[in-house]
Amino acid sequence: METRGHHISHKFDAELEDVRNRVLAMGGLVEQQILQAITSLAEGDTKLAEVVIDNDIKVNSAEVAIDEECTHIIARRQPAASDLRLLIAVIKTITDLERIGDQAERIARMSQRLAQFERPKNQYGELKHIGELVAQMVHDALDAFARMDAEAAVNVARQDLKVDQEYDGVMRQALTFMMEDPRAITRMLDVMWTARAIERIGDHAKNICEYVIYLVMGKDVRHTGIEKMGGEIKR
Amino acid sequence: METRGHHISHKFDAELEDVRNRVLAMGGLVEQQILQAITSLAEGDTKLAEVVIDNDIKVNSAEVAIDEECTHIIARRQPAASDLRLLIAVIKTITDLERIGDQAERIARMSQRLAQFERPKNQYGELKHIGELVAQMVHDALDAFARMDAEAAVNVARQDLKVDQEYDGVMRQALTFMMEDPRAITRMLDVMWTARAIERIGDHAKNICEYVIYLVMGKDVRHTGIEKMGGEIKR
Repeated sequence: METRGHHISHKFDAELEDVRNRVLAMGGLVEQQILQAITSLAEGDTKLAEVVIDNDIKVNSAEVAIDEECTHIIARRQPAASDLRLLIAVIKTITDLERIGDQAERIARMSQRLAQFERPKNQYGELKHIGELVAQMVHDALDAFARMDAEAAVNVARQDLKVDQEYDGVMRQALTFMMEDPRAITRMLDVMWTARAIERIGDHAKNICEYVIYLVMGKDVRHTGIEKMGGEIKR
Repeated sequence: METRGHHISHKFDAELEDVRNRVLAMGGLVEQQILQAITSLAEGDTKLAEVVIDNDIKVNSAEVAIDEECTHIIARRQPAASDLRLLIAVIKTITDLERIGDQAERIARMSQRLAQFERPKNQYGELKHIGELVAQMVHDALDAFARMDAEAAVNVARQDLKVDQEYDGVMRQALTFMMEDPRAITRMLDVMWTARAIERIGDHAKNICEYVIYLVMGKDVRHTGIEKMGGEIKR
């Protein structure tokens, strides 16, 4: 979060900077959770999955702590409208980060189940690919947040279309496998749930982008199409 | 939201009362969306499904408007910590209500797909039942919110366990049908996605309950088990 204008209190600036750093640290943790969950899936590494499941509590604690800090700052500093919007956007962003963490945990649990089955030749390469895509989206969304860069946020949000396309491909393929071989149904359902969890991470990253665009543009772009967003920023 | 203590400004009280009424109205709209989506599913009524899909924009607009109103009130009134927490809880609650609306829309879309297939004898009675259960949870969660009743909130949150049990039953049954008759796979997947959307509504209702408990107890009970919550309230 770039400091917008000078604040009378240097301490207030320092507090905002601290919040910014904590959100980025929480984002780094969540990104790591996604990547480890995906690795555990691709490598059938149930121990790594266990680590991800155990670490979800750290994500939850980070959310609670940052939420508290934001509320304290608002109560104590009674910030002007623009800083207030920023702090409320932080509270929303960490809610999405926490839910991304839940999805990472879900992927880790699925990877434990899938490790019991025969493995496909490509080692779930297509899931790994979408997983890396959404982890990058989360990273870039927080980067756009930190720099308050609406154009970057629009670009990241656009990536969600690509995620959705790849997701549709995985789902179609899993459905085909099921129909061809009913013995594969249980395993293919787990693949589908995993794909769904990954796809939802993309949605949450897109939510974060929308908060950035909202903050920069000063109007609500949620529930507006991405293309329209991009157009409005260029204007 | 009960008024806690007297506010110097009667206008501030009136503003909080207005927010309260708008949240309840939004809740009523969302509850109607769920019930209509479920009815369209149970009766194969694709026109009613269309109405639900069209009305989702009303849910989205309500979220944006209430969000703006809360931010304005915080900026203008610079409320004390307890009222601030209340307003932030409202902002979080309407985010969950908006996402419940998205799930209702998703159920409506699934009901349109399922209407093309042969219908089961029980007319998706088990999905209808869980759907009514979660609609009631949403209603009761908002009721607990309006009355700031933490004990009621714990009871509503507990219902989520029942939803999860019924959800597991539907999923197991759908899996059995798939294995017995691979021609039913496509339809059963739609049943599973519908069940998942319903189950997620229960999760969002539970989130709302947690905000209430947090507000009343003054500490963060998110990420704490429901039983522990109940114990703490009795103490």
